[in-house]
Amino acid sequence: MHDAPPIYEAQLAEVIASVSPTDPALDAAVWERLDALTKPPRSLGRLEEVAARIARIQRTTRPEVRHKWVLLMAGDHGVVAQGVSPYPQSVTAEMVRTIASGRAAINQLASVVDARVVVYDVGVAADLEGLSGVEHRKVAPGTDDMSLGPAMSREACAHAVLVGVQAAREAATRGASLLGMGEMGIGNTTAAAALTATFTGTAPERVVGPGTGLDSAGLAAKARVVRTALEVNRADELDALGVLAAIGGFEIAALAGVVIGAAGEQTAVIADGFVACAGALAAAAMCPASLEYLLPSHRSAEPGHRVALETLGLDPLLDLGMRLGEGTGAALAMGLADAACRMLSGMATFAEAGVSEAS
Amino acid sequence: MHDAPPIYEAQLAEVIASVSPTDPALDAAVWERLDALTKPPRSLGRLEEVAARIARIQRTTRPEVRHKWVLLMAGDHGVVAQGVSPYPQSVTAEMVRTIASGRAAINQLASVVDARVVVYDVGVAADLEGLSGVEHRKVAPGTDDMSLGPAMSREACAHAVLVGVQAAREAATRGASLLGMGEMGIGNTTAAAALTATFTGTAPERVVGPGTGLDSAGLAAKARVVRTALEVNRADELDALGVLAAIGGFEIAALAGVVIGAAGEQTAVIADGFVACAGALAAAAMCPASLEYLLPSHRSAEPGHRVALETLGLDPLLDLGMRLGEGTGAALAMGLADAACRMLSGMATFAEAGVSEAS
Repeated sequence: MHDAPPIYEAQLAEVIASVSPTDPALDAAVWERLDALTKPPRSLGRLEEVAARIARIQRTTRPEVRHKWVLLMAGDHGVVAQGVSPYPQSVTAEMVRTIASGRAAINQLASVVDARVVVYDVGVAADLEGLSGVEHRKVAPGTDDMSLGPAMSREACAHAVLVGVQAAREAATRGASLLGMGEMGIGNTTAAAALTATFTGTAPERVVGPGTGLDSAGLAAKARVVRTALEVNRADELDALGVLAAIGGFEIAALAGVVIGAAGEQTAVIADGFVACAGALAAAAMCPASLEYLLPSHRSAEPGHRVALETLGLDPLLDLGMRLGEGTGAALAMGLADAACRMLSGMATFAEAGVSEAS
Repeated sequence: MHDAPPIYEAQLAEVIASVSPTDPALDAAVWERLDALTKPPRSLGRLEEVAARIARIQRTTRPEVRHKWVLLMAGDHGVVAQGVSPYPQSVTAEMVRTIASGRAAINQLASVVDARVVVYDVGVAADLEGLSGVEHRKVAPGTDDMSLGPAMSREACAHAVLVGVQAAREAATRGASLLGMGEMGIGNTTAAAALTATFTGTAPERVVGPGTGLDSAGLAAKARVVRTALEVNRADELDALGVLAAIGGFEIAALAGVVIGAAGEQTAVIADGFVACAGALAAAAMCPASLEYLLPSHRSAEPGHRVALETLGLDPLLDLGMRLGEGTGAALAMGLADAACRMLSGMATFAEAGVSEAS
């Protein structure tokens, strides 16, 4: 296996090379229109910024986000053997089933904004074959324990990133104009902490959080596991794929791919919480231009999320003390992004409406 | 006129007497269900609080907010003669027409959450009779200049409050399970500042803001106008209707009525920005139990809003630098409230989904 040509890595390099930055050519026209709409100038605050960003991504002064897809990547983590989560590993597969049945939190939140939820098995440690409502793209049944060695091989990791790229392409091809990042994976806040520590140059203790519900002893143990994983792997932070392979996860790699794939499709993608942002950090490291297509959602209660958001340059739109994942923050922010675009594209200007302007 | 029996005031007193507080009887069952749903306990943060509050208001463990109505009250202000707004008074009527045509900001934002927008002429200083898409309930064509004397008579003010009560009743009767407060009225941040100063015991200078776009000289002049209005009227802060009549507005009085009417219908109502919250302060003063039916939306960029929110005990869900009014903040928060209720009512429990629980 070690000597096989790195097919996936080469494919990924091609995808990355094909990503273009966004185009600011229409920015002035967009802001001129925003200031001509029947409202005091800039009185919709950050909604105007969001509208302008999506307009730039869509290369139009009349952006639309009517078709919304949450791409929810699922995978398991060998590091759960170190006791980093209060939930058993089986919960990943059980929650994939619940999501596929439409009765998880993300299904309810996505329904409010008419977003489609597509759940991908990228690396679940259970046989889900034949389960309807799931996209079956399993690279392997869970990662290896990153505290003992690399979580994945480079090729398996590149393969998982490409699953995400392909997911974004399929969504865009089928009409999605706004994507949301979502994830499910018991143990994945531990991998997210390791990635965030590495990509932001922060001490593990500052980015480790309670995840699904650790107490303070559990938290200290989790920080030690992250520190061990960093020491065992000694990944070169300038080799983003190497970092992602060593201390990431299949679903996190796929989310990095979603960001890169969205950028390739010139489609806006909304970040979610801590784990999704760890994937976005990897995407930004591998493909800096992809970051221009990424919009913020919320600030989660996980302490590492704040650190990741700062490095990504994302100022969250929501701060509701949420820490669930699954794309729940992205789904809520999709409604705000839709509102922003309808405002820019659907409102009348002062001239059109015959409304008097300010003196 | 002064000697006519106070018919509207007496009717209003009856309405207020009929409002019941919310019922906490099901609170324990609601939180038990919230903690049994397939997510780590409390991991949806403030969304869980919102769900629990609406459940209490609807007296059920399965709340729903599928039919949403924004009740948008419009009125003019005599105090514009003092130069408190950069926009001419005609903009109120022009914006009512724009809202009725579906091309104002509120129409676009409400469409995202499938909310119906109903605009009421409660006191516009222009003849809108026959304009379709507007509820014609004009009490008078604008208030008098509050810096010279009372803005309205007590009876006219009570009449305007009852317009709002009736609007909430009609919406509830026609199936609305969630109401939003909205307003339009050139000059109304000046009235809102006077009301907020009085009901919260704050100096006018601390609650006066730029509104639609005053510069610092305009701001200082606006604060002087508010101070003059307070001195000229010397309203007794314990007589809430008297305060509202002296320094309020027709649309603000109607919004106080919307809060009281929503409470009477045991229906949740979402606050909007600074002007709407001035109406809510009046409602809370006249009918303290009505406050239990009021949910927060956003924190606006108007400095007085923060003061009003604190007094109302509302912790905003959104902080996007918005300062438009029209119910735009309420519309955005309606999506969050809907998400909260779908979460509580639509998610599976761990037992139902066969998902393993935490150790």
